[in-house]
Amino acid sequence: MQNRMAAAAKKLLHQRRSILNFSQINRSSSTSGFTHHCGHVPLKQFLASYRWDLWRSCLIHMQNMSAVHHRKFGSVASTIVQRNPMFSTINDDDLIYFEKILGMKRVIQDHEELKTANTDWMHKYKGSSKLMLQPENTAELSQILEYCNSRRLAVVPQGGNTGLVGGSVPVYDEIIINTRRMNSIISFDKVSGVLVCEAGCILENLISFLDKEGFIMPLDLGAKGSCQIGGNISTNAGGLRLVRYGSLHGTVLGLEVVLANGSVIEMLGTLRKDNTGYDLKHLFIGSEGSLGIVTKVSILTPPKLSSVNIAFLACQDYISCQKLLFQAKRKLGEILSAFEFLDAQAMNLVLHHLDSVRNPLPSSIYNFYILIETTGSNESNDKEKLEAFLLHAMESGLVSDGALAQDFSQASSFWHIREGIPEALMKAGAVYKYDLSLPVEKMYDLVEDMRIRLGGAANVVGYGHLGDGNLHLNVSAPQYDDAILAQIEPFVYEWTSRHRGSISAEHGLGLMKAEKIYYSKSSETVQLMASIKKLLDPNGIMNPYKVIPSSLVS
Amino acid sequence: MQNRMAAAAKKLLHQRRSILNFSQINRSSSTSGFTHHCGHVPLKQFLASYRWDLWRSCLIHMQNMSAVHHRKFGSVASTIVQRNPMFSTINDDDLIYFEKILGMKRVIQDHEELKTANTDWMHKYKGSSKLMLQPENTAELSQILEYCNSRRLAVVPQGGNTGLVGGSVPVYDEIIINTRRMNSIISFDKVSGVLVCEAGCILENLISFLDKEGFIMPLDLGAKGSCQIGGNISTNAGGLRLVRYGSLHGTVLGLEVVLANGSVIEMLGTLRKDNTGYDLKHLFIGSEGSLGIVTKVSILTPPKLSSVNIAFLACQDYISCQKLLFQAKRKLGEILSAFEFLDAQAMNLVLHHLDSVRNPLPSSIYNFYILIETTGSNESNDKEKLEAFLLHAMESGLVSDGALAQDFSQASSFWHIREGIPEALMKAGAVYKYDLSLPVEKMYDLVEDMRIRLGGAANVVGYGHLGDGNLHLNVSAPQYDDAILAQIEPFVYEWTSRHRGSISAEHGLGLMKAEKIYYSKSSETVQLMASIKKLLDPNGIMNPYKVIPSSLVS
Repeated sequence: MQNRMAAAAKKLLHQRRSILNFSQINRSSSTSGFTHHCGHVPLKQFLASYRWDLWRSCLIHMQNMSAVHHRKFGSVASTIVQRNPMFSTINDDDLIYFEKILGMKRVIQDHEELKTANTDWMHKYKGSSKLMLQPENTAELSQILEYCNSRRLAVVPQGGNTGLVGGSVPVYDEIIINTRRMNSIISFDKVSGVLVCEAGCILENLISFLDKEGFIMPLDLGAKGSCQIGGNISTNAGGLRLVRYGSLHGTVLGLEVVLANGSVIEMLGTLRKDNTGYDLKHLFIGSEGSLGIVTKVSILTPPKLSSVNIAFLACQDYISCQKLLFQAKRKLGEILSAFEFLDAQAMNLVLHHLDSVRNPLPSSIYNFYILIETTGSNESNDKEKLEAFLLHAMESGLVSDGALAQDFSQASSFWHIREGIPEALMKAGAVYKYDLSLPVEKMYDLVEDMRIRLGGAANVVGYGHLGDGNLHLNVSAPQYDDAILAQIEPFVYEWTSRHRGSISAEHGLGLMKAEKIYYSKSSETVQLMASIKKLLDPNGIMNPYKVIPSSLVS
Repeated sequence: MQNRMAAAAKKLLHQRRSILNFSQINRSSSTSGFTHHCGHVPLKQFLASYRWDLWRSCLIHMQNMSAVHHRKFGSVASTIVQRNPMFSTINDDDLIYFEKILGMKRVIQDHEELKTANTDWMHKYKGSSKLMLQPENTAELSQILEYCNSRRLAVVPQGGNTGLVGGSVPVYDEIIINTRRMNSIISFDKVSGVLVCEAGCILENLISFLDKEGFIMPLDLGAKGSCQIGGNISTNAGGLRLVRYGSLHGTVLGLEVVLANGSVIEMLGTLRKDNTGYDLKHLFIGSEGSLGIVTKVSILTPPKLSSVNIAFLACQDYISCQKLLFQAKRKLGEILSAFEFLDAQAMNLVLHHLDSVRNPLPSSIYNFYILIETTGSNESNDKEKLEAFLLHAMESGLVSDGALAQDFSQASSFWHIREGIPEALMKAGAVYKYDLSLPVEKMYDLVEDMRIRLGGAANVVGYGHLGDGNLHLNVSAPQYDDAILAQIEPFVYEWTSRHRGSISAEHGLGLMKAEKIYYSKSSETVQLMASIKKLLDPNGIMNPYKVIPSSLVS
């Protein structure tokens, strides 16, 4: 019986290869018949640069969209908060003091430079800061904060300013403290893989540095060409490698942080094990610069592995997607590096709006598509493992159809489908975007509930990082419409809260969602956060109006 | 040239196999010639039970030793601290109140039961508590703490009481709050691998539960038969799987915690991504019950993988050990699950004092030995990968000799060498034990410096978790001697501090090292810890005299 099923599955796989015209297939060299020939070019590197290009292109689209549709952009810019009257405004004495510490050049009052620094990259948030300071080291930054605290001058720490929730730009006239000049690599230990660097290092520069040493960063983001490691840590950035290497709470080994009063908290350990007292660095991972400014970072970097494989699969129902994830975690286990999903609506959008995309599985329309990436140390072993997994998945009926990337072009075209969805959504018209974490088994229920709720008024699209339980829920409509928005919110937040999800999976709360924190956190927990904020920053000068509801901390 | 070297390496491996009489070798089925036949018995399970037995035997030895040598047991019991006069003592009204909440049976005043609970398992620390409370749920525990806080009755949270630094027993008359009755598994999600349970669950019970589901706990300890998950988290337990699955800061997804004032902080998320405010659960991971009591836990569990392989290797110098670790991280990468080392002195002790141990590499005496374990999802792939790695290691001269376990018996005998060292040390005489984290490249310098410092007065032994940078430094002498101790301390702490190491890699500070915290943490950091302690526990009732220097918090 088993043999018959295996034979049927092999037949299916063989048919699939014929459909896709995989001319390079060499059955004799492989157990199941799945093969691919990637040669010796660094595939991961190619994909990374590809995504970066796409991100840039999305950015331009989103900027255009936000200029047109700003007012009705979901809940994005709806937060109204008053300037805290306890804060001072900058005077000439302040400028003289800062120039004494930093020199003229790094005390910036230039209108054009400030215009850029006052605005986020989506042009959704705009502050009115009159001053940007660029310290070159921890001592300077400490002096600045000590002074600002004594004068009750509010500050906003700014790295690459690539955030999505208005966390890295001023709300009013906060002084911008930009960390771009603190960008040295301090040390790298090739045995332990521990990198120590300053907070202003651009992520892509760290990736390039490590690449030469045979290592990678444990996180990778579309915005890597601009974002800084200090910002990544302050926002607890997730990114593309989380399913494999985990969150920054696991990989960051140490931090140096400056508190509001200028105290330098040196916790820059390079050890994997250190149980000497409370591990306070975690307070600063994900607190969005509201408790202190990260100045130095110690992080564990994984070795760079040579073998990358990508499969694009079709499933008929969501339960099969879940089961496939379960199987992938067991059978691919240690080599699984991405498990992404998109529904038929997302696939249709991409096929319709992006000329460059073609369907790798064109013989039928399926309800769900899965992209699986593996990364390992041995090409032939990994291929064999992936092929055995896919064979079993087809044999058991979890996968209805599938294709293995045979070369770089196919690999990038598979990623292009998944990564092209935001761009396709932008081209389709107005879009209401939600970035949510939900238990995997409940995740798609929200998409279906939203579909029922909105009826024919809008196209509800679901995709995201299934391996991380991270859903990107998007509602696409011909144009922005308050009636549609009223149907979506607060329903989406209430639904997420009811199912113990997170209303911000990886972007943080910033200004956008500070007042919505109770959808994901209990009042006792938020109260404790506020107490910690008051303890570390009693004057509330650090990135005010963000993260914590203003009523609790002002 | 390369072919010649490969041939030479293969010859070496072949010779080694002959020496070890590996009768089951079947060269034709393997590329390099390394093979092993483990059949279908769960090797990992076997090894786990093996280690547990060993731990029990060590415990008995150590108990005997401590009874004899208690007074001069290094720095272990040297801390002198006065009872905080601000604390109340228990009166009849208190007992009536507790009995009203818990009933008679769970308000324990029985002398024998209290005698056990007042003492740690090594019999190094002994309190004089008159009362042990056993809440069954969070609500009861909350009521207890609220009352104790209002009455200024100090408490000590107690799980399995398997700690090594006096953290889980009273110092004076603190009320013992034992969590053993809060031991339910609340939920397990087979798709995401997220387990939610109460704090009193015994680690081994969780491992057994998950085993049936095809998962494992991300941590494993010798004490798993007694220790509780709440205690594991409160002490940030490291254990045997850290090199593979990372620390609890990465794998714990959520906690429920009760603060000193009885507030229940519900942060029991089950999501891999959640960036909604400060991630306060990390405050309670490793704070040894001094900030609150963990009542519920949500933890990410890895899938159980079927293939386990073990190699025992010899290196001539420490630099080769480091290079081998570097290579293992690259070439074994995703399947590496242990990388342990011992020096010739440790090997000699084991061979001399443990009858059951034989040397797998008897042809010569080497300076260092390495135990490598791999865990993966595919037996033949993993074997092939390990064999290729070993071939390369011999070819490049990093490894002088080596053996691959061919069956359970060999695998357990390899682990027995590494795990038998504490027992051998106990048999050898007096021993001064230090558990340190150090940068890998500096780690063995301390052993050599100590050897020079002590001359012929004692035998200095180094072994430990090289993959984690965790050194177990042991000084073995015929008998305890204040002159030797004075040579070791504070030198060992100063040396560790000078090289930015940790004086407690995984055991915590507890009572034993609370006053030594400055060797590993800056005064600003310790001051911030004390501020957090005062914020969360203003009356200081939670596990007093531990973790933070008493002068800062009383």
